[in-house]
Amino acid sequence: MDVLKTNGVRRTNWGRWGESDELGALNLLTPERVLAALQIPKTGKTYSLSIPIQRSGVPNFEYRGTPMRLTTMNHTDEYMAQANGGVPGVGASEDQLIMPSHTSTHMDSLCHVYSDSTIYNGYPHDSVSSYGGAAKCSIDKVGGFAGRGVLIDVAAALGTNCLAPDHVITPDELRTALAAQKVELAAGDLVLIRTGWIEAFLANPGDTMPQPGLGLDAATFLAGHDVSLVGADNSAIEAIPFDQGVYLGGHIVLLVDHGIHLVENLNLQELSADKCYEFFLSIGALKITGGTASPVTPVAIG
Amino acid sequence: MDVLKTNGVRRTNWGRWGESDELGALNLLTPERVLAALQIPKTGKTYSLSIPIQRSGVPNFEYRGTPMRLTTMNHTDEYMAQANGGVPGVGASEDQLIMPSHTSTHMDSLCHVYSDSTIYNGYPHDSVSSYGGAAKCSIDKVGGFAGRGVLIDVAAALGTNCLAPDHVITPDELRTALAAQKVELAAGDLVLIRTGWIEAFLANPGDTMPQPGLGLDAATFLAGHDVSLVGADNSAIEAIPFDQGVYLGGHIVLLVDHGIHLVENLNLQELSADKCYEFFLSIGALKITGGTASPVTPVAIG
Amino acid sequence: MDVLKTNGVRRTNWGRWGESDELGALNLLTPERVLAALQIPKTGKTYSLSIPIQRSGVPNFEYRGTPMRLTTMNHTDEYMAQANGGVPGVGASEDQLIMPSHTSTHMDSLCHVYSDSTIYNGYPHDSVSSYGGAAKCSIDKVGGFAGRGVLIDVAAALGTNCLAPDHVITPDELRTALAAQKVELAAGDLVLIRTGWIEAFLANPGDTMPQPGLGLDAATFLAGHDVSLVGADNSAIEAIPFDQGVYLGGHIVLLVDHGIHLVENLNLQELSADKCYEFFLSIGALKITGGTASPVTPVAIG
Amino acid sequence: MDVLKTNGVRRTNWGRWGESDELGALNLLTPERVLAALQIPKTGKTYSLSIPIQRSGVPNFEYRGTPMRLTTMNHTDEYMAQANGGVPGVGASEDQLIMPSHTSTHMDSLCHVYSDSTIYNGYPHDSVSSYGGAAKCSIDKVGGFAGRGVLIDVAAALGTNCLAPDHVITPDELRTALAAQKVELAAGDLVLIRTGWIEAFLANPGDTMPQPGLGLDAATFLAGHDVSLVGADNSAIEAIPFDQGVYLGGHIVLLVDHGIHLVENLNLQELSADKCYEFFLSIGALKITGGTASPVTPVAIG
Repeated sequence: MDVLKTNGVRRTNWGRWGESDELGALNLLTPERVLAALQIPKTGKTYSLSIPIQRSGVPNFEYRGTPMRLTTMNHTDEYMAQANGGVPGVGASEDQLIMPSHTSTHMDSLCHVYSDSTIYNGYPHDSVSSYGGAAKCSIDKVGGFAGRGVLIDVAAALGTNCLAPDHVITPDELRTALAAQKVELAAGDLVLIRTGWIEAFLANPGDTMPQPGLGLDAATFLAGHDVSLVGADNSAIEAIPFDQGVYLGGHIVLLVDHGIHLVENLNLQELSADKCYEFFLSIGALKITGGTASPVTPVAIG
Repeated sequence: MDVLKTNGVRRTNWGRWGESDELGALNLLTPERVLAALQIPKTGKTYSLSIPIQRSGVPNFEYRGTPMRLTTMNHTDEYMAQANGGVPGVGASEDQLIMPSHTSTHMDSLCHVYSDSTIYNGYPHDSVSSYGGAAKCSIDKVGGFAGRGVLIDVAAALGTNCLAPDHVITPDELRTALAAQKVELAAGDLVLIRTGWIEAFLANPGDTMPQPGLGLDAATFLAGHDVSLVGADNSAIEAIPFDQGVYLGGHIVLLVDHGIHLVENLNLQELSADKCYEFFLSIGALKITGGTASPVTPVAIG
Repeated sequence: MDVLKTNGVRRTNWGRWGESDELGALNLLTPERVLAALQIPKTGKTYSLSIPIQRSGVPNFEYRGTPMRLTTMNHTDEYMAQANGGVPGVGASEDQLIMPSHTSTHMDSLCHVYSDSTIYNGYPHDSVSSYGGAAKCSIDKVGGFAGRGVLIDVAAALGTNCLAPDHVITPDELRTALAAQKVELAAGDLVLIRTGWIEAFLANPGDTMPQPGLGLDAATFLAGHDVSLVGADNSAIEAIPFDQGVYLGGHIVLLVDHGIHLVENLNLQELSADKCYEFFLSIGALKITGGTASPVTPVAIG
Repeated sequence: MDVLKTNGVRRTNWGRWGESDELGALNLLTPERVLAALQIPKTGKTYSLSIPIQRSGVPNFEYRGTPMRLTTMNHTDEYMAQANGGVPGVGASEDQLIMPSHTSTHMDSLCHVYSDSTIYNGYPHDSVSSYGGAAKCSIDKVGGFAGRGVLIDVAAALGTNCLAPDHVITPDELRTALAAQKVELAAGDLVLIRTGWIEAFLANPGDTMPQPGLGLDAATFLAGHDVSLVGADNSAIEAIPFDQGVYLGGHIVLLVDHGIHLVENLNLQELSADKCYEFFLSIGALKITGGTASPVTPVAIG
């Protein structure tokens, strides 16, 4: 923790939006910024930034369990439709989802990680109970939001399809990529970092670790630009193993200290292919009462 | 089924976008229409149109099972963080979701309902297998999309907070509401119907049936306007019990015959309170491989 | 808690089988007692003492969620068999279980309830973590066991099919029933109490509360006879609402203080009909690592 | 299928216990045989023949999903107890199970496998619907039963701790083991085959295939002895890959043709260590309505 304590940016956003705030840097998404973001798109092309939700072929950690779609009913149960007045040949198919909230493309709640036994804004870590879930900073407090999306295509800037598995992204690399893209960060931005990792994994599923991702300084760099959200096409935003050995250090800098929500396991391939670096972005988090995360399909318009 | 067969609009959209189409009326969301929709918002206010995902106090049918968020880990498992290099006081909370895909605010896939043993575009009803799910027209084919949203506030037009439980909405009522709102429907619109039902249920949870909703003629009216999507603040878009006793008749007209996706259990209260009848709307369906539906939080910007 | 503290029998069994014991009164099931129990049966008739595991028509409390059997695969997935070398017409059906451990017919682990922040034998209540489950006295420590089963048919002794919903069973009623049955309790017995409640519920499913069951003195009476296990044909062994207003008082007397495992939601109808009061009984608890309970089908032989 | 058709023993038991029978060879467990089995035990020692139910370290096939015990509530939710009248320091811990029915130690229903599109006794394979599960030969028809248990310790007879992964057990090997054990098979026996495989897997979890197990002739040999049940300490009773390339051939001989229930993933280590070859065995299958299998902890008494 010494590494974090000496970086001078710890907990800058605690109290910034009031003692009872649970939204963090999403407070920066003012109506003015939303209206401005709506003016960005030029092509009207829509991008879905999520990966499939399925049992295999996608990144997951074993301790979380297998994401499953199970069939609740289908045509083999047509007798049920007929028992309710359906004529032969008419029926419905339904399913049941069983999935870890932190697998697939998902958004972390501000309650997801704690440090010094506190989550964002100083709420105690034990405000998450087993049955009730998170009493503070849960995902249902978020719902839907939108703003200016910015892609920082680190992989492209470094001339590769995929960063090396042990690559730790530095502030200089972020600056280099932004300069190459001719894009500047602004307060309230929804920033998406491309490492290329998930594209390589989906093409050839294998080990889920190590993974390239943000280093501690890069996380601090983004927080310093007062962004509203950070996303990436890997499983934890930050590099795994953790930069400088600080367990969940990138989460602590962004989520805990700055109240910046995170989106993981994004698919940024199509945005990259189109060199679409600035776009309108909307995310509709599910209102899971007490939830520590929500699966999402972020919608970008270029 | 005679009712449906004689209405003269059956299956108009089959083959319209090709023999292998699985998107239906979402094909109407051209980049031009998306760009036009981005110009609608005036206030920049963002609306989340979903209801909570939780065990009780929300509409659900018993046969679907209880939606549950279960805690996978929290501070009581901090020993796991420490086993991976965490210092005392640092840890993470995660959860597991178990939920019917057709409960809460959700979007039906085009494969959800079949009639004459076929789903939209003529694919056979048994293209939904138990393990594999839907091979055709599953929700993962959809992902995210956006366009012009239109609220038809039937409850407000009829001068009530909530339509009577047995109210069957007619085309005339839709016309009356649109006229009162000074809004006209256009091809590609994402149309949301407000009955007020879900607001009454959330305020005082009780029976899930009967419910006010679209009648068969109203469904046909909307299909006739070439809309891309129909949503409502009830559990089935259409009235329950079904209009004229036609089992899933509204679904058959819209979903099966016209390839128009449906969104159910919406919360339209805030849009109604603001008299926000025209807006930008984006929806990010989860890419559940083979899925018959996806929970969603539609994001509207007024 | 004063009620419990003054009854003079608190925590008699703590330390009785050692400081590290996690089995409680099941320690009384010595090989000698098992061999003796094998000599009880006269007819060789086998009884299954469990109720169905299904979504409805069985007792369950809403907060626990709906027990579900979902089809993982069936004949609609025969293509999977063929992909693995199966010939047409050959395949398999499998399912997935989602169920609360404390619904249906189940056995409580000794860790299930705590009092004064401790479970049986003085282990702390926070030895149950969210991810890991119970570190002490979990159901996997139990597995299978067998011994002398004794039915105390209180309903029959009181001349009714089902005790009144608010009936609190007293020690005298237990004595009366045993005398009428000409059976005496002995150390190590597996005692099953019949109220008739579950038979009435299964015949006509309705409210799950109130329920007849053991009062505090009756629980103390059974503990005083040094029995190994107490089961009943209701949802909590004890009466609900709780006798004398002591929350989980019967569980505290039996489970916490005496280390006596409990089995709930038994079906004792057939044993009662046959007036089979003494029998061989075996129970195979599932070895759910860290589990607080296990669904079981106890097997009696008369 | 030619291999099976030419072995001359196909479908011998269809119709043997009536056209509407759903129990198969369990019909052989007459009261007389049960009473006789109760006289077998000499030591009174109780054996639990199941393996743990947990996320990892146990055999499972990925397509089935991860078995999970999730905490529904524990001491972090004590506020719930207090809301219902509990005093501070009193509460309960509960969990939720999510598990494939065919993982861990489990018993296959007679509906589990079909051949020529029929299950045991000629019921059609599509009597298993998605929502309803199996209408015929489901596990809830079985419940609890007991009889004479016989261990055939093939590994010990062949002088090894564990058969080679590609070992296919022959009738001669079964005869050799029985002769070495001085035990003879009789009608109605519950026969358990020990390969040693699961002990090796639990000690050092690795690949789940290949696995030693019964060959087709050995399955036919056991069926020819009119046994009631066959169990083994591997995942499919039969060898994987399947003997002679017949997909699920051992299941077809035993389950489909002879109505002989199967129990898989048994732990027979302790019985083997004690050279306990003949014993009383009871199994309490959970009454999962429509289920294709049930997790079980068989209880043996030596």
